[in-house]
Amino acid sequence: MANETRELTVELGDRSYPIYIGSGLLARTGQLFAERGFSVKSPVMLVTDASVEGLYAEAVEKALSDSGYKVTTAVVPSGETSKSLEMLDELVGVALQAGLDRRSTVIALGGGVVGDLAGFVAASYMRGVRFVQIPTTILAHDSSVGGKVAVNHRLAKNIIGAFYQPEFVLYDLDTLASLPMREVRAGLSEVIKHGLIWNADFVSWCEDNVERLLGLEPDALGYALYEGCRVKSIVVSRDERENDLRAILNLGHTIGHALEAVAGYGVLAHGEAIAIGMIGSARLATRFGYDSEIEVVTERIFRKFGLPVRIPEGIATEEVMAAMLHDKKFLEGQMVFVVPTAIGSVEIRNDVQIEWVSEIVDGLREGN
Amino acid sequence: MANETRELTVELGDRSYPIYIGSGLLARTGQLFAERGFSVKSPVMLVTDASVEGLYAEAVEKALSDSGYKVTTAVVPSGETSKSLEMLDELVGVALQAGLDRRSTVIALGGGVVGDLAGFVAASYMRGVRFVQIPTTILAHDSSVGGKVAVNHRLAKNIIGAFYQPEFVLYDLDTLASLPMREVRAGLSEVIKHGLIWNADFVSWCEDNVERLLGLEPDALGYALYEGCRVKSIVVSRDERENDLRAILNLGHTIGHALEAVAGYGVLAHGEAIAIGMIGSARLATRFGYDSEIEVVTERIFRKFGLPVRIPEGIATEEVMAAMLHDKKFLEGQMVFVVPTAIGSVEIRNDVQIEWVSEIVDGLREGN
Repeated sequence: MANETRELTVELGDRSYPIYIGSGLLARTGQLFAERGFSVKSPVMLVTDASVEGLYAEAVEKALSDSGYKVTTAVVPSGETSKSLEMLDELVGVALQAGLDRRSTVIALGGGVVGDLAGFVAASYMRGVRFVQIPTTILAHDSSVGGKVAVNHRLAKNIIGAFYQPEFVLYDLDTLASLPMREVRAGLSEVIKHGLIWNADFVSWCEDNVERLLGLEPDALGYALYEGCRVKSIVVSRDERENDLRAILNLGHTIGHALEAVAGYGVLAHGEAIAIGMIGSARLATRFGYDSEIEVVTERIFRKFGLPVRIPEGIATEEVMAAMLHDKKFLEGQMVFVVPTAIGSVEIRNDVQIEWVSEIVDGLREGN
Repeated sequence: MANETRELTVELGDRSYPIYIGSGLLARTGQLFAERGFSVKSPVMLVTDASVEGLYAEAVEKALSDSGYKVTTAVVPSGETSKSLEMLDELVGVALQAGLDRRSTVIALGGGVVGDLAGFVAASYMRGVRFVQIPTTILAHDSSVGGKVAVNHRLAKNIIGAFYQPEFVLYDLDTLASLPMREVRAGLSEVIKHGLIWNADFVSWCEDNVERLLGLEPDALGYALYEGCRVKSIVVSRDERENDLRAILNLGHTIGHALEAVAGYGVLAHGEAIAIGMIGSARLATRFGYDSEIEVVTERIFRKFGLPVRIPEGIATEEVMAAMLHDKKFLEGQMVFVVPTAIGSVEIRNDVQIEWVSEIVDGLREGN
């Protein structure tokens, strides 16, 4: 492949790590392990899901065995339901039987679900072993920066987890070619989010490059992923454990998570749900007296990318509001929201009135 | 109570925390929360077990509510079986329903099982909330220093966990008065271990104070716990994540864990199993050519404390050896053991011959 490999460092002191973005990178996995001095004596566990396994697992396995590593591959069912304590239990069993020791590495090959699950396995197996991420979706650019790993509980999403940084992230653009169009759009929603919170120029660039991005043109895609990861890594570097600044990354997520929960996880893709959520946040900005152009641009860009901009039929406002009560972004009973103050800039408000949110959710329902 | 409160700091940079050892401390829980600025707006979850609940939960609950904190108590069954992912799942459910948020605190009131379980809940709930330990056993002096928290997997003990430091540890000596004699002895086994690895004078002091310690004389007990915690905290401060030095704390644990597993968890108390294990390690010292006096003193002190010094009948050497293969202290296929070089000093050997261990285990069986 002719296009360049981009490299970015997530700065976190002694937990800093690089992200490599480019084509043909899977074949370099073993070499990267060796360069970092990972011992061939300690077995590696490759965690992937049923949809990714057949496409890319063999390339990674081969690259590792060519460099002398012993790999055991664990395949979990595709989808959010694999982010469970039951699956953690199962993967720990596989790791034990494969003889993984404290110097072993757990690799996540797949999207956000596999990354979150395998990351929590790496964080908790023997109280922490090495973790490497090989994302195969656009959306996973988000979860591959910042070390947030978790599984779900029947009462709440992502509620059992850790902050656990990978050794490195390998983003092979070739793996994105197999993504269904709907996932491409949903993944780009989170890329655009990083522009909306931090970089107005990048938002314009995305609007100007809709066709190239939806067409998965490697150079455009590589740049967009690089920029998305870069914004996120700046925020994460300044607030690793989500004490303050990092909360801005939740733009659109309060409403978005509630929509996902009510629709049933997986019905509305995460990126779709937060696109609607970001439009909701932009409407909140108007309520707070900020430029109504924010609302216009936010809705326009998501429309251009073919993302949903209204809540699908059959979802009641009351259900969405109720689901928000279980959202962990409600601290000490206060209603906290990330609100845009301009395109490329946001603030955290803890004085958001519940009625406003309820009215906005109502106004976002299909047909309104 | 007239005797003094001892205070010790576990030095871990910005994760440093104090341990308070003395009488009448439970009643001070609320005051200590307030002094540290824990918000009364965030609910507290008190995790305890069925045996401890009736004895001490009310005192802690009262101390906290008197200071304005809202407390929810979760009671788990007594015993090792509670250290499971199922129980983690259940406690996270309780925490969610009680409205615990990211500024909340999880308290462990009980022995090592409760500490390990509640500690892993605190480490993983919302990716980490505050953790406070109130140990009610002598053995828990060990697990309350160093932040090792974990649950068990059906294939291995303590295999799913984290390194997670508490905000503070409250050791109320009054709670030890209700301990069965067998648990007192077993707990002191781990106290003596800290002498054996680090402080020969303390080992002599223990031998000279057998009666006072077994009689739970507060001043002797307070001093022994202080010294046990102090030795452990020195080791942990120098090696928080168990990369090297911290391994010396595993004196007697390789054989000990295997004995516990084979006997069935809970049949042989942890402190009993490691007493036998430490005698095994002392015999290994003799094999390596160290002073045979080590073996003599080690066996003599455990006899004085009324601890088992031989493997109970019905446990076959082969079973013990097989159980060791699942022990995580075997790194990269090498057989690693902590071996005494004198009383109060140990080294880590990775050149231990399996036949030696097998012969020593055989020699330690009842009747030999």
